[in-house]
Amino acid sequence: MKARLDCIPCILRQVLRASQYSHLPPEIQEKILRESMNALLKEEWSKTPPELAHIAHKIARKYARGDPYKEVKKKSNDEALSLYPKLKKIVDESDDPLRTAIRIAIAGNIIDFGALEEYNIEKTVNEVLHKKFAYDDYPLFKKILKNAKSILYFADNAGEIVFDKLLIEKIKEIKDYKITLVVKAGPIINDATLEDVKYIGLDKLINDIRYISNGEIGYERNSPEVKSWIKEHDLTISKGQGNYEGLSEFQGIFYMLMVKCPVIAEDINANVGDIILLYR
Amino acid sequence: MKARLDCIPCILRQVLRASQYSHLPPEIQEKILRESMNALLKEEWSKTPPELAHIAHKIARKYARGDPYKEVKKKSNDEALSLYPKLKKIVDESDDPLRTAIRIAIAGNIIDFGALEEYNIEKTVNEVLHKKFAYDDYPLFKKILKNAKSILYFADNAGEIVFDKLLIEKIKEIKDYKITLVVKAGPIINDATLEDVKYIGLDKLINDIRYISNGEIGYERNSPEVKSWIKEHDLTISKGQGNYEGLSEFQGIFYMLMVKCPVIAEDINANVGDIILLYR
Repeated sequence: MKARLDCIPCILRQVLRASQYSHLPPEIQEKILRESMNALLKEEWSKTPPELAHIAHKIARKYARGDPYKEVKKKSNDEALSLYPKLKKIVDESDDPLRTAIRIAIAGNIIDFGALEEYNIEKTVNEVLHKKFAYDDYPLFKKILKNAKSILYFADNAGEIVFDKLLIEKIKEIKDYKITLVVKAGPIINDATLEDVKYIGLDKLINDIRYISNGEIGYERNSPEVKSWIKEHDLTISKGQGNYEGLSEFQGIFYMLMVKCPVIAEDINANVGDIILLYR
Repeated sequence: MKARLDCIPCILRQVLRASQYSHLPPEIQEKILRESMNALLKEEWSKTPPELAHIAHKIARKYARGDPYKEVKKKSNDEALSLYPKLKKIVDESDDPLRTAIRIAIAGNIIDFGALEEYNIEKTVNEVLHKKFAYDDYPLFKKILKNAKSILYFADNAGEIVFDKLLIEKIKEIKDYKITLVVKAGPIINDATLEDVKYIGLDKLINDIRYISNGEIGYERNSPEVKSWIKEHDLTISKGQGNYEGLSEFQGIFYMLMVKCPVIAEDINANVGDIILLYR
């Protein structure tokens, strides 16, 4: 999807937050914000929101000399790992473990330092376990999953990938699917990278890994390469808003996400706070 | 107070919202946003938040050819007027009508299309009636009020001024104070102007009216003229965040407001959602 005008102030807020997470002095923070504004002014705003966000976050990383969200991401992974045994028990003891694992993977999507400033993961899990889906393509998901051999899984954020791990485990209990995980090629906000995948032990469950762009390295989501990855697999799962924004021009994807901003809400025809399992 | 970096994306969000309220076509909205970004980049960011906001909102008004918030303001005034009899009853039947009227005037400060996107006025009134003040200089307020003859009252938003009217009535029941009301000289966001004052009948209660800047006409809050107005009166009441931001370099003001953004929360040493009756 194309960025809306609302995305511009939001990206600037995000990049300022990134510079604050880096504990950079205020004058450098101002420099990052001003450079980001100048850089965005030079762009056409018909790109996807992640493509525009990349431009600003690249500037923040230049000054931060590294990943502003390193600490935040470790904390998210650790918090999610500490919840893992309890969540696994909830999944295993539920009437429909696959569906419950999907709900929990969607609840994990609340760990998003791009769209949100604060969240409470345990509270969100409890809510999402009983929440009505705004779109519920679960029957179709089960049907396609049944006949599939290979799955392409676009992960979203650090921390959240612990919840994805739970879902992938549940899927692999059904059949030994060939799982290809997609993460960011380098740091951007709190998005998961290979480092996070290894940290939480998800690398042991997957057969292949691919990398999408953080604005510096990797393929853009709406590139011919990524399109070919989707064609290569029998089933594609896309987690979160950023992947939805970047992949929405392709067909045949199961989107699992929590609606966290009015721009996505309008595009997807749902409300902020809704949970989505949508095939498109 | 000086603007924080957080104010910049927030002002851009505000001005975009203003252009959306004007029902301007998307390409004009983009023009407004881009011009606002360019204009803010040309500024030093050590001005007050309202001064920076004026720059952007002036651009929105240029394209809107009028007040983007005209409808919104009328709706807020009408909604507040419809609540007036009920609120007056609550005030009159309370143990301390003056204090209750202050609470209600602060609750009315939720009607703010600058800081917030949504609000529920009745819910807010019910909460604020029982909420603990983060700063509570009520004893000092009563003491200074007792000996005062003249009051300078900086109003904030349309709709909210109906709640101010209730407080001003309660104050005038004590003694026939000379009341000078301060409103915006022209439209900016949903801030109250003379038109609103007349619409809700507040003009009949006041003895004098002064005008502060909307970025085009009127005095800036931190100007020598406004300082002299404060000196001229025995007691000064300042409603809302914008007035706090613009007046905070002066002494001897009672601030009545609801904390609605993290920048104010930090500056005032309180939390978002707090209610404040602060003498400074």
